[in-house]
Amino acid sequence: MIAELISVGTELLMGQVLNTDAQFMAKELAPLGVNVYHQVTVGDNPGRLKDALTQALSRADVAILSGGLGPTGDDLTKETVAELFHKELVMDEAALETLKARFRAFGREMTPNNLKQAMFPVGSIILPNEKGTAPGCIVEGEDGKACILLPGPPRELFPMFTDSVMPYLEKRAGHKLYTRELRIFGKGESSVEYELRDLIEGQTNPTIAPYAKTGEVTLRVTARCQTPEEGEGIVMPVVREIISRFGDIVYSIEGEELAEVVAKLLVERDRTLGVAESCTGGMVASTLVDVPGCSEFLMEGAVTYSDAAKMRRLGVNVHTLRQFGAVSAETAKEMAVGMRRTSGADYAIATTGIAGPDGGTKEKPVGLVYIALAGEHTVQVKELHLTGDRARIRHTTVLNVLDLLRRELLKKTEEAE
Amino acid sequence: MIAELISVGTELLMGQVLNTDAQFMAKELAPLGVNVYHQVTVGDNPGRLKDALTQALSRADVAILSGGLGPTGDDLTKETVAELFHKELVMDEAALETLKARFRAFGREMTPNNLKQAMFPVGSIILPNEKGTAPGCIVEGEDGKACILLPGPPRELFPMFTDSVMPYLEKRAGHKLYTRELRIFGKGESSVEYELRDLIEGQTNPTIAPYAKTGEVTLRVTARCQTPEEGEGIVMPVVREIISRFGDIVYSIEGEELAEVVAKLLVERDRTLGVAESCTGGMVASTLVDVPGCSEFLMEGAVTYSDAAKMRRLGVNVHTLRQFGAVSAETAKEMAVGMRRTSGADYAIATTGIAGPDGGTKEKPVGLVYIALAGEHTVQVKELHLTGDRARIRHTTVLNVLDLLRRELLKKTEEAE
Repeated sequence: MIAELISVGTELLMGQVLNTDAQFMAKELAPLGVNVYHQVTVGDNPGRLKDALTQALSRADVAILSGGLGPTGDDLTKETVAELFHKELVMDEAALETLKARFRAFGREMTPNNLKQAMFPVGSIILPNEKGTAPGCIVEGEDGKACILLPGPPRELFPMFTDSVMPYLEKRAGHKLYTRELRIFGKGESSVEYELRDLIEGQTNPTIAPYAKTGEVTLRVTARCQTPEEGEGIVMPVVREIISRFGDIVYSIEGEELAEVVAKLLVERDRTLGVAESCTGGMVASTLVDVPGCSEFLMEGAVTYSDAAKMRRLGVNVHTLRQFGAVSAETAKEMAVGMRRTSGADYAIATTGIAGPDGGTKEKPVGLVYIALAGEHTVQVKELHLTGDRARIRHTTVLNVLDLLRRELLKKTEEAE
Repeated sequence: MIAELISVGTELLMGQVLNTDAQFMAKELAPLGVNVYHQVTVGDNPGRLKDALTQALSRADVAILSGGLGPTGDDLTKETVAELFHKELVMDEAALETLKARFRAFGREMTPNNLKQAMFPVGSIILPNEKGTAPGCIVEGEDGKACILLPGPPRELFPMFTDSVMPYLEKRAGHKLYTRELRIFGKGESSVEYELRDLIEGQTNPTIAPYAKTGEVTLRVTARCQTPEEGEGIVMPVVREIISRFGDIVYSIEGEELAEVVAKLLVERDRTLGVAESCTGGMVASTLVDVPGCSEFLMEGAVTYSDAAKMRRLGVNVHTLRQFGAVSAETAKEMAVGMRRTSGADYAIATTGIAGPDGGTKEKPVGLVYIALAGEHTVQVKELHLTGDRARIRHTTVLNVLDLLRRELLKKTEEAE
């Protein structure tokens, strides 16, 4: 099956909006075995939209259009598709009722132009919109080709694509998908690809696709299958093979964030945490607070950017700061120990480093970072040499200190078993 | 002038990479008066690239290609363009020297396939790459049409586009651009557009284009001109008109972030700051630490997510917590006052609220947030009712509390004057 993506919207051509829809859909389509050879963006212009659609249907089985389903005069996608497929636009009573109910629920008046959103090319499959007013639809031609029309806003398109479009395409393709998302910290994307090249190149079911994120790698292992059980049977041996090669640098096989994994481990083990931050300046705490329910384990955080705050809040020794400096293994250690003691938490983690762009010296260059973890019996300190700009250095420091804690928590389990 | 953007890369078609290049270029081209009617993405496939390029040159004056300039066998953009323009690929000695020097500087060995990166269609204008190994180039045809070839990675493309492509296009267009970027907090995008509709619709020079960001609006006011002085003369009256309508909700006319503006004001006034955070959990401090040089004003931050930490670190009264709860105006006030007192800073800001998804009640629903600012003589508290998911509520809380501080700092100046 070949699909072509057509994004409709003058705001995309003007650069006012980033086209996250196209990436999202492409990422979902690839493992299904649907080939996408072209992505096209056109404005709210019926002539150019018609040309793009005609070209797409000449070279693909399915054209997926996003945008142009709204109530305004600019929104012409349905009209254009109806014309091309020689189908009339008709009012769908069920969609109209849903639309009216939605306006009532929000206490807004429904103006006549909104009626347009309940009209579809005759015979369409209508796709409900849980997050907005404009439903999507699928229009099938007599030649078996199809047009899938979706709303532009990502918060409306993403769930509609997952809940309605994927099942339709799976049915067309004659198989379903089963995916595991492996998250890896501690190995670059090119090393991951290189060390798995026999698996990546050799296999077509499951497929293995790497996605890079700052400081991390995501691997999606996806099987084409008829049932979830069959999919799991195809995917899991490959997942186990990857884990046997990479060990515990694979921190999730369910697509969780590192902070989520750490939060889950802390809650499971009934352990609490304190965070003392210098160069990350609140980013470690904030990343943990992103996880709902963090109050179960997060006792407190301190952003001790100044020497004075390090001494006052964490009890870092003035001599340590004088002798070794604020960016040193010794200071990191005292920060973690001081946070653990003053907060009463089971564990405390600490960061101190030079994030740049200024403040580096020959002895202590930009990118030099110390992280520390204080537990009941031991304190661990790690020296990092990070690269990139200020934002990247701070971000990778957060990942490193969370990973240090994750490894400690895993160790505790192994000892307990 | 009409331009068409062609993004080249199978990783885009697979959804492994988000196409930020296209948005960046579109955003720069719009105010220059260059019309972009089509953006197209194709894979690393010479046949489809050639077709896309032929079509682009049939309907546009300039085709701008990104991606496919690297050293590997997949990278075929230059070969395809050379073939289409009937030009030979020749080695550029200056580019070769630069390439060799770059490999020496990084201590990496230059393999033969890298030579390809110093070869260009004969007669090309070569565009230096400050951030990577592959230079870009401009190839002009006899019919006056041009192909601009750029590397795919955004960190290489963005500066090359700004430094080399824009001057080329300005020359072709016969005018330069002068831009001011207004940042607005406290009014939604649709209100901004509505209240400026006479300016936006009426004028072609300067143009006014709004860009929405979570919780904020950016307005780019851009003039076509021959000199920066002329540009300023065209842009500034419109900027002043916008400020006269919106007042101090315009927090920057130079595209600065809110945190940068606050940091600058604190440094100028020689004032220090302490931050006490509950629902934002370190995000306020982290946003300020994003600004280089924050050690000049940031005394410290405390993430007091638990009641115990609010009492221990900030001296919040146990009775206040019992009577009014952690999410209350009273607690926010005591957090700010306590942080100011214990840190010795001139100002302290505090946040406490219900970010969701759980924890909301009928009396205190998700989105209820209190922010406070303690200064020398007064304490201000503000009750906010925010919408969206956990991340959005936390993010807009950060903006609100920074803006509260900005307004206080501006007041001080007015009084001093």
